[in-house]
Amino acid sequence: MDKKLTLSKPEHVASNGLLDRRYFLKSSAAYLTAGSSMLMGSISHAQRSYPDYMTLPGAPLSGYGHRSVNEDHVQRYISLTRGTTGAGNSRTPLEKLHGIITPNGLHFERHHSGIPDINPDNHQLLIHGLVERPLVFSMENLMKYPMVSRFQYIECSGNSRPNLASEASDLTCGEIHGMISCCEWTGIPLSTLLAETGINPNAKWVLAEGADAAEMGRSIPIEKALDDTLIAIFQNGEAIRPENGYPLRILLPGYEGNISVKWLQRIKLSDVPLMTRDETSKYTDLQKNGTSEMFTLEMGVKSVIVSPSGKQQLGPHGIYEIRGLAWSGAGTITRVEVSADGGASWTDTLLTEPVMRKSLTQFRIPWEWNGQPAILMSRSYDDQGNRQPTRSEFIQNSGLQVNYHNNMIQSWQVNSEGQVQNVYV
Amino acid sequence: MDKKLTLSKPEHVASNGLLDRRYFLKSSAAYLTAGSSMLMGSISHAQRSYPDYMTLPGAPLSGYGHRSVNEDHVQRYISLTRGTTGAGNSRTPLEKLHGIITPNGLHFERHHSGIPDINPDNHQLLIHGLVERPLVFSMENLMKYPMVSRFQYIECSGNSRPNLASEASDLTCGEIHGMISCCEWTGIPLSTLLAETGINPNAKWVLAEGADAAEMGRSIPIEKALDDTLIAIFQNGEAIRPENGYPLRILLPGYEGNISVKWLQRIKLSDVPLMTRDETSKYTDLQKNGTSEMFTLEMGVKSVIVSPSGKQQLGPHGIYEIRGLAWSGAGTITRVEVSADGGASWTDTLLTEPVMRKSLTQFRIPWEWNGQPAILMSRSYDDQGNRQPTRSEFIQNSGLQVNYHNNMIQSWQVNSEGQVQNVYV
Repeated sequence: MDKKLTLSKPEHVASNGLLDRRYFLKSSAAYLTAGSSMLMGSISHAQRSYPDYMTLPGAPLSGYGHRSVNEDHVQRYISLTRGTTGAGNSRTPLEKLHGIITPNGLHFERHHSGIPDINPDNHQLLIHGLVERPLVFSMENLMKYPMVSRFQYIECSGNSRPNLASEASDLTCGEIHGMISCCEWTGIPLSTLLAETGINPNAKWVLAEGADAAEMGRSIPIEKALDDTLIAIFQNGEAIRPENGYPLRILLPGYEGNISVKWLQRIKLSDVPLMTRDETSKYTDLQKNGTSEMFTLEMGVKSVIVSPSGKQQLGPHGIYEIRGLAWSGAGTITRVEVSADGGASWTDTLLTEPVMRKSLTQFRIPWEWNGQPAILMSRSYDDQGNRQPTRSEFIQNSGLQVNYHNNMIQSWQVNSEGQVQNVYV
Repeated sequence: MDKKLTLSKPEHVASNGLLDRRYFLKSSAAYLTAGSSMLMGSISHAQRSYPDYMTLPGAPLSGYGHRSVNEDHVQRYISLTRGTTGAGNSRTPLEKLHGIITPNGLHFERHHSGIPDINPDNHQLLIHGLVERPLVFSMENLMKYPMVSRFQYIECSGNSRPNLASEASDLTCGEIHGMISCCEWTGIPLSTLLAETGINPNAKWVLAEGADAAEMGRSIPIEKALDDTLIAIFQNGEAIRPENGYPLRILLPGYEGNISVKWLQRIKLSDVPLMTRDETSKYTDLQKNGTSEMFTLEMGVKSVIVSPSGKQQLGPHGIYEIRGLAWSGAGTITRVEVSADGGASWTDTLLTEPVMRKSLTQFRIPWEWNGQPAILMSRSYDDQGNRQPTRSEFIQNSGLQVNYHNNMIQSWQVNSEGQVQNVYV
């Protein structure tokens, strides 16, 4: 038997049910002194049973653990490129995860010819070109260097492409936006290794090339290479996963994910960009006038509500938490606002600490759904003065012929039955 | 062919080779302008080959990823309690990990009767006792509550017990200290659920009970229960792993790990502690005078050098990075010092951001090993005025008859062959 608990006097701060972002905190504290109740809870009679797992010894200790089989339904969304066996992408199910860390098994994938099976004992990194002395590093050598750890997101520049179609598709949050993930990455600053090789003053670009069958390569401006670029070896504490570049990837925080080349085998310094296949035939931005912009590397300021989100179903009318993720390739998130009326009114959300540079940031706000239709939107701001654009601002600026860098505001429509659906506003 | 690169004029800041903690940073920056070289790198001639994985398509995309088989050697250290199938512990191999996040597969384990196989659809949490209305929550109900995410370590109070033996054992860092791990945990503040049930003013203690075959239970002071205690559901983004309490564990940041009861099924409010088996027969601190202290819950301020550490082997003489982890159950790490001469001289290390409350904090410092014997030690401080004790201070205060709460300074001896070994100083 379920009984609905009700809230006393929620204070509305924007139209269509948005509540003070500190409402949950206040309510909880208030309750303990004043005896008011909160939230949608359930009451039922206490029942006690002793299932087998409480009367027999359980499973033993293990050297390396795995998730429960009951969690098998939490999977990346796979899109295989037609005619290939290993090219395509798989997207993180953002709406099923909580926190800013993406577990290694669910980090998004984007491969151009599958995952190479590399034995780290045989893997080498060559640094050559416009250097004073070319060097080859074994993994054993690299492990001797001082490393740094940072929480960084990686976002594919093709993320959110479904919303560049002319009609809104009925998809989940992860299906649309799941080509972003966030981990604690540990590795060697590229500047440390370039200090070993020396840099010819004419060097302006840095090629990063992978050891996959596509030999994926990208050109990096040398300023970025000497700034916060890492030669990453560890992901959330352990060795990088095969699908994320084992044993070595280059990591360019805030830049489009494709340039954080996986299975890194070669770095070449040059006076000009190397004009690889993957920065000429792909990963360029087709403009309205038919020309293409190249090397548009920094990802925009962006946010998305992960709950409630596409294809979810709300329960009874009452108070819900709207929660989501925000990020910026330019720096640090300073503010995320939410609207429940399709953008007519906005209010601030609570950001969860730690709020870190070029990392994911969680935001949340309570929302009282009264059973009327609603359109939920979020917009983010960063410390470099950027604001996430509306759909119409994005189209006006970039058009819909582009394939990359879609950071327009996402709109989720909640209908009177509580069904949530992707819509264009 | 290897060639050793040498450093120019390292500045020594304490005896036996400790260098300015910013030396690596300065060297790297200095190189780029002045052309000096740094560190132990290797030079060899560039070689190019095309292994099979570069000429054939690689492995396909997957719904949930796994680590490389080449990483199978990275395992938890298992100690099974004699005569049982599922009681004992497995320890995190701290010396093989990088960063503050412990990957879920390598989080330490401590079970009293193995891992129960719980289907979350059937799991319930009962809250009763000195409450205004007893409530039973299904997992589906719990998922509707607002949650918070925090980076917290969990340390078993029996961690580092090997160093309470009269003779120092030749063990690795993880074998001695690996009953600590750190994750991003997401869950419901317990105060939120107690706001639902109401709290009788006579309630002073909170029983937390697990659904394992040991029905592990512990008593929690109500002040802590209403402070930062979480009902955790997610670990590093995904559902808590079976060995860490799937689908539900209570999490008491900074308190001994045993009280963060796994497979949580019941919370009972009481006016007195419940005096369970696990807080009477175990997890009490035997004093020198033969009495036992109970409910010594907060873990001390502590640190350990993870590299170089026990059973490791240094390479040639030269510059190494000393790196380690520090934490405090009372609050936030403010400072970690390192000694290379067995405690005669100390110098500050660099702390890696973010430095968070009751989380792991990384520290590091460069060290020039000249081939002479050395004894490496670290000591940490927190923002509550606590300092990690020396071995003799710990023994003077607590004796060696205790089984828990060993936070004494760890000493690693480096001999002239570069072998690293656990020693008592």
